[in-house]
Amino acid sequence: MRAVDIIIKKRDKQQLTAQEIDFFIQGFTNGDIPDYQASAFAMAIVLNGMTPFETADLTLAMAKSGQVLDLSKIVDIAVDKHSSGGVGDKTSISVMPMVAACGLPVGKMSGRGLGFSGGTLDKLESVPGYRVDLSTEEFKKQLKEKGIVLTGQSMDLAPADGKMYALRDVTGTVPSMPLIASSIMSKKIAAGAQAIVLDVKTGLGAFMETLEAARELAELMVDIGRLAGRKTVALLSDMNQPLGASVGNALEMIEAIETLKGGGAPDFVEHCLHVAAHVLMVGNRAKDLTEARAMAEKSIADGSALDKLRLLVAAQGGDVSYVDDPSKFERAKFIEVVKAPRSGFISQVHARIVGEAAVALGAGRAKKGDPIDHAVGFIILKKVGDPVQAGEPLFEVHANSEEKLAEAREAVLSSYQFSDESVPPLPLFYE
Amino acid sequence: MRAVDIIIKKRDKQQLTAQEIDFFIQGFTNGDIPDYQASAFAMAIVLNGMTPFETADLTLAMAKSGQVLDLSKIVDIAVDKHSSGGVGDKTSISVMPMVAACGLPVGKMSGRGLGFSGGTLDKLESVPGYRVDLSTEEFKKQLKEKGIVLTGQSMDLAPADGKMYALRDVTGTVPSMPLIASSIMSKKIAAGAQAIVLDVKTGLGAFMETLEAARELAELMVDIGRLAGRKTVALLSDMNQPLGASVGNALEMIEAIETLKGGGAPDFVEHCLHVAAHVLMVGNRAKDLTEARAMAEKSIADGSALDKLRLLVAAQGGDVSYVDDPSKFERAKFIEVVKAPRSGFISQVHARIVGEAAVALGAGRAKKGDPIDHAVGFIILKKVGDPVQAGEPLFEVHANSEEKLAEAREAVLSSYQFSDESVPPLPLFYE
Repeated sequence: MRAVDIIIKKRDKQQLTAQEIDFFIQGFTNGDIPDYQASAFAMAIVLNGMTPFETADLTLAMAKSGQVLDLSKIVDIAVDKHSSGGVGDKTSISVMPMVAACGLPVGKMSGRGLGFSGGTLDKLESVPGYRVDLSTEEFKKQLKEKGIVLTGQSMDLAPADGKMYALRDVTGTVPSMPLIASSIMSKKIAAGAQAIVLDVKTGLGAFMETLEAARELAELMVDIGRLAGRKTVALLSDMNQPLGASVGNALEMIEAIETLKGGGAPDFVEHCLHVAAHVLMVGNRAKDLTEARAMAEKSIADGSALDKLRLLVAAQGGDVSYVDDPSKFERAKFIEVVKAPRSGFISQVHARIVGEAAVALGAGRAKKGDPIDHAVGFIILKKVGDPVQAGEPLFEVHANSEEKLAEAREAVLSSYQFSDESVPPLPLFYE
Repeated sequence: MRAVDIIIKKRDKQQLTAQEIDFFIQGFTNGDIPDYQASAFAMAIVLNGMTPFETADLTLAMAKSGQVLDLSKIVDIAVDKHSSGGVGDKTSISVMPMVAACGLPVGKMSGRGLGFSGGTLDKLESVPGYRVDLSTEEFKKQLKEKGIVLTGQSMDLAPADGKMYALRDVTGTVPSMPLIASSIMSKKIAAGAQAIVLDVKTGLGAFMETLEAARELAELMVDIGRLAGRKTVALLSDMNQPLGASVGNALEMIEAIETLKGGGAPDFVEHCLHVAAHVLMVGNRAKDLTEARAMAEKSIADGSALDKLRLLVAAQGGDVSYVDDPSKFERAKFIEVVKAPRSGFISQVHARIVGEAAVALGAGRAKKGDPIDHAVGFIILKKVGDPVQAGEPLFEVHANSEEKLAEAREAVLSSYQFSDESVPPLPLFYE
């Protein structure tokens, strides 16, 4: 088998076999197949596509390019939940304790933020002491003993994916459904997931801006999961405006905690209950979604979800007193409440603009490895559909310099659009 | 300007500017743009194409990636003739002396054979002493003083093309009209051509198997020539069966010499007169094709073309006595005349099979740098349309081992097809 013949086959729109895809990916991972062949292959895939079968084969080949975690001896079913990324998305931090409290052990390896999209690890690290660098052994031990883990990747999961992504980034081969879907799913499978709930975001602040694109990606990932023997469910949720009220690491951590205490922005609470119910369903803990949702609601009402969060924070070395008293979180030096410039109804809070303004404040990173500021961010007080009077509080800016505060204020003001007529609220989920 | 943005633009089917193409090619040539970006770019071109404007810009960018020969002070118009390659194609060796004898100075840098397609340099080197490694200064001096030069590339013409071709070969990005056309034309322009006659072969023994593909390539090269300010004419000629009677280096050299002495296979003589007439036309040496053809015929009849070949061979250190007495050329040890296995009309002599059989005999090389055997090859005695009686001589095999002779005999026999009904001869030119 020769790499060039596999490239030619894809160039000529023929379907590749599992053996061919595996040969290419393993050769690329170990360096036998050079970058210049992999980039030509990637471009052929971008332009000629892949069938769901080929995409599933690509996913499995990338998953097994490195170590594959086996959790079957630790839990009856290893469940993972993945969000395609957005602004204000702290869902995992609330949902995982909820489902763990319902008796479903959950261990998740999460990522850092990049660009306008935040990352769960960065939010967790706003709790002093919280470790996101558990070893694989620590991961397994904690999952078994505590039933909940939320950490970074301890090992190089799916190294082919990492290597391929770096190459795609500089060769114009990023936008391809098969390449995006297999990249996500290969890491989930390598991390040991047997059942997966995918929260695919769509809208102005999502990587998939249109519902059609998000649906295509969601369907493809569900197909991959099915072909790879993983129970997979995909939700399509809104990311036109930020999710919940807070944007920024400590601010989002506080909102996630408040949600488990029965507070939190209504849209975020609803989002969490819906996701948690689906996770409980794929984890075989409820007979239907109604029962699953009731279980999730009860975990908040009886404090068991909050207890699981305390357990998680303590297990990973974090200061639990921050969970008990969120006022302890580091606060930004300058906090300004920005007033509505006019009366009317909110018709848009452009999520991407808010996300980019948060990065500019220091809450995120423009490039990998940049330091971040946990305290800064926004509280979004008025969202799409809300009526507002001129002079009423619209949002808060939390900044550590007056200059950055001024810039952020203008940016987020520009993310708002107003209408004279009433505007329906945005749906939380599309499908 | 970033290479990745140029790749993305082509990926998204947008038209590139001359500046973008030039930036990419110069960056690739000097190593600023790595192979993995160039191969992704090439694949995007293969799959999304290029307009004639982009292709002309690509051609000029590759031509000026190295030294560009300036012949304007040496000749009034620098004319080049290019064949797209085939089996038995010794045209340049006969045509160049013909046009030089008609008062049109011609200097040509030619190539070696690769795969089933022979190379002019290999044929010339069957004359002992003939040098194909003239320096640029020697090239210019000989062109000025003798009016005829036929040598290899003394310098790295269009280095971007060489580098790109090596990359295309291993990344499945060879079959692309814009890439093939710009590769050919960039070398012609770098070699100083101001007027170009392209002999594009089509058929079983050509790189362009269908007439449609050959026509598309020919039209694109004429477009490039026009856009680059070079007078360009393309001929479409047949390569279903070998051209002329001989296949093999010394055998073809002998046929080229015999042609200038008034002999030669009728199809090859006709081919040479037609090409020579077009070269004389683009070189402004005749008022119309009829006059040009008469000039070419006269150069054979009066021996002036043969004198020019003698002059060429002598100027480049070759033993002129071989031109005077072709029986001096090295002969193969084993020569067998193969008889027709049946009576009928010849309906096919598959050029590619014959070309590959010649390579197997040692006349060509499977890969760059392989040694070759000048003496071996075939004499094709019966061609398409010829009636034949069982037992009549069909072809000769010239081999240096009995084993190879037997293999070659079977291969060439298999290239023949016979019909009971009369078959029209193949046209020499299509358009």
